Amino acid sequence: MQAGLDLYPTRGASEQILERSDRVVFGSRELESPYGLQPNQVDSYEKNGFLIFPDFFAPQEVDLFLNEFYRLGRAPEMQEREELIREPDGNVVRSIFNQHKFSDLFDRLSRDHRILDKVTQLLGSPAYIHHGRINIKPANKGKSFPWHSDFETWHAEDGLPNCRVVTGWIMLTSNNEFNGPLYLLPGSHKRFVSCAGKTPEENYKNSLRKQEYGVPSSGTLQKLVAESGVVGAYGPSGTLVFHEGNIMHGSPDNISPWPRINLMFVYNSIENGPVDKPFGAAKPRPEFLRCTDISPLVPLDNTFL
Amino acid sequence: MQAGLDLYPTRGASEQILERSDRVVFGSRELESPYGLQPNQVDSYEKNGFLIFPDFFAPQEVDLFLNEFYRLGRAPEMQEREELIREPDGNVVRSIFNQHKFSDLFDRLSRDHRILDKVTQLLGSPAYIHHGRINIKPANKGKSFPWHSDFETWHAEDGLPNCRVVTGWIMLTSNNEFNGPLYLLPGSHKRFVSCAGKTPEENYKNSLRKQEYGVPSSGTLQKLVAESGVVGAYGPSGTLVFHEGNIMHGSPDNISPWPRINLMFVYNSIENGPVDKPFGAAKPRPEFLRCTDISPLVPLDNTFL
Repeated sequence: MQAGLDLYPTRGASEQILERSDRVVFGSRELESPYGLQPNQVDSYEKNGFLIFPDFFAPQEVDLFLNEFYRLGRAPEMQEREELIREPDGNVVRSIFNQHKFSDLFDRLSRDHRILDKVTQLLGSPAYIHHGRINIKPANKGKSFPWHSDFETWHAEDGLPNCRVVTGWIMLTSNNEFNGPLYLLPGSHKRFVSCAGKTPEENYKNSLRKQEYGVPSSGTLQKLVAESGVVGAYGPSGTLVFHEGNIMHGSPDNISPWPRINLMFVYNSIENGPVDKPFGAAKPRPEFLRCTDISPLVPLDNTFL
Repeated sequence: MQAGLDLYPTRGASEQILERSDRVVFGSRELESPYGLQPNQVDSYEKNGFLIFPDFFAPQEVDLFLNEFYRLGRAPEMQEREELIREPDGNVVRSIFNQHKFSDLFDRLSRDHRILDKVTQLLGSPAYIHHGRINIKPANKGKSFPWHSDFETWHAEDGLPNCRVVTGWIMLTSNNEFNGPLYLLPGSHKRFVSCAGKTPEENYKNSLRKQEYGVPSSGTLQKLVAESGVVGAYGPSGTLVFHEGNIMHGSPDNISPWPRINLMFVYNSIENGPVDKPFGAAKPRPEFLRCTDISPLVPLDNTFL
């Protein structure tokens, strides 16, 4: 796809807070599927930029997902792939990207009516997956991750033109106030922080570990927090969360004895596929982070149990 | 004072979880002063190892304390003293030790009937101050501090023979779930984790920044947490907290835009002054961390307002 107007200029000489150009909710407020969102849930997403559904999946389902994650981490065919990321100090698996491409179970999960019907309602179109990820923040030593908007990177480095993207994620372990949970700034998805600093080549090799470009200054963060406060995304394992692509979020380190394991799918509208030349980097990120196949996901009725 | 039997051997070849040898509460359960603790508060301290009094000091009092802290940080006579600790990356004051020795206001605060009557009730004797400290965990970049028992260090490196010591501290800014608060393991004060590893010389020069000796293994921490869970010490500015010297605690980093500033006094029983040869180090720490003047504090009726 060719790039049009850049609605969200970023990675320039100076930082600015811009207003969001896109709607937040592209679809209908009204329930269109038995698995869709109620009007008050859509309103809450519109206003706050996220939705949390505690206990959405049963413990037995979560066990299946966890076991499948561990299986993938050990699978011979995964060992040399760039989708599998290990801890710097050892052999332990830290992340697996695009779990839905290597696992029938995760493929089915990614298209589960219970998730996908909500996603397509918010996006107002069919969706495809920009990328997926399962991530461990290990007990005792998991590191903090700085404040950022995902969409800022996806626009700058991947070429998603519009902010019409939502991340759906499942807590595979409890996310609590002690194990390095996601902190969200409610309503921050309505601002776009145009970040200072030219993107280096192959920035993704560093940014997946510790983001340095696309991070707002402490003064800007303070302004956003003064408007919004901070909310922690907490819940028991099995909790489903949606957060709008542009919501500002970060997470502290994990000094607790509980690992934090989350499974994510980044759902983008099929009308918002990546353009060839990204808006804030010389070259787009590789295919495993920036899927160029925008074929719509076909929803499935799953019975995992 | 000469050392007797070592009730809490630590810094040896291997880690062990020992039972506490000392009582937790040495004084009376019954209210003996209008500023003392109620029986249920004493029971809660005995069981959990801490007490939290939200809004104990008025905002105007907190302002006085904060301003006095800032004044001390700028005071010419403080600039070259070892009691004043700066951030490694600049000139900003991170801690001031023994604030009560340099400030009439903090001296009066340390002896305030409202605090001291509770302390002497818990200790069952008059008290003196082992050391005092005001500490900033700065916004955006404050670092985590590993799990530890204060008493383990005070016994090993300072020579306090018995666990008959309580820290009273005041939140000078809000301590919330986002700004790197203290996490406590309720009930952990009834165990003593005998930690592995011989104390290096002048360990305090490193341990005040990042403790490495006297830190339990992740396996031990997991055991303690399984017994107790974790509690965050949260409250608005002006909150008063007491925590028993041996309670296990740690704190995560502060990625929030809110600095966390706390003022502490370590109250030790005058019957528990430091022995000459500490129990787990070749030489005791310096006087500014280990007060050898055990003259009892004389309580004061203060009106800061």
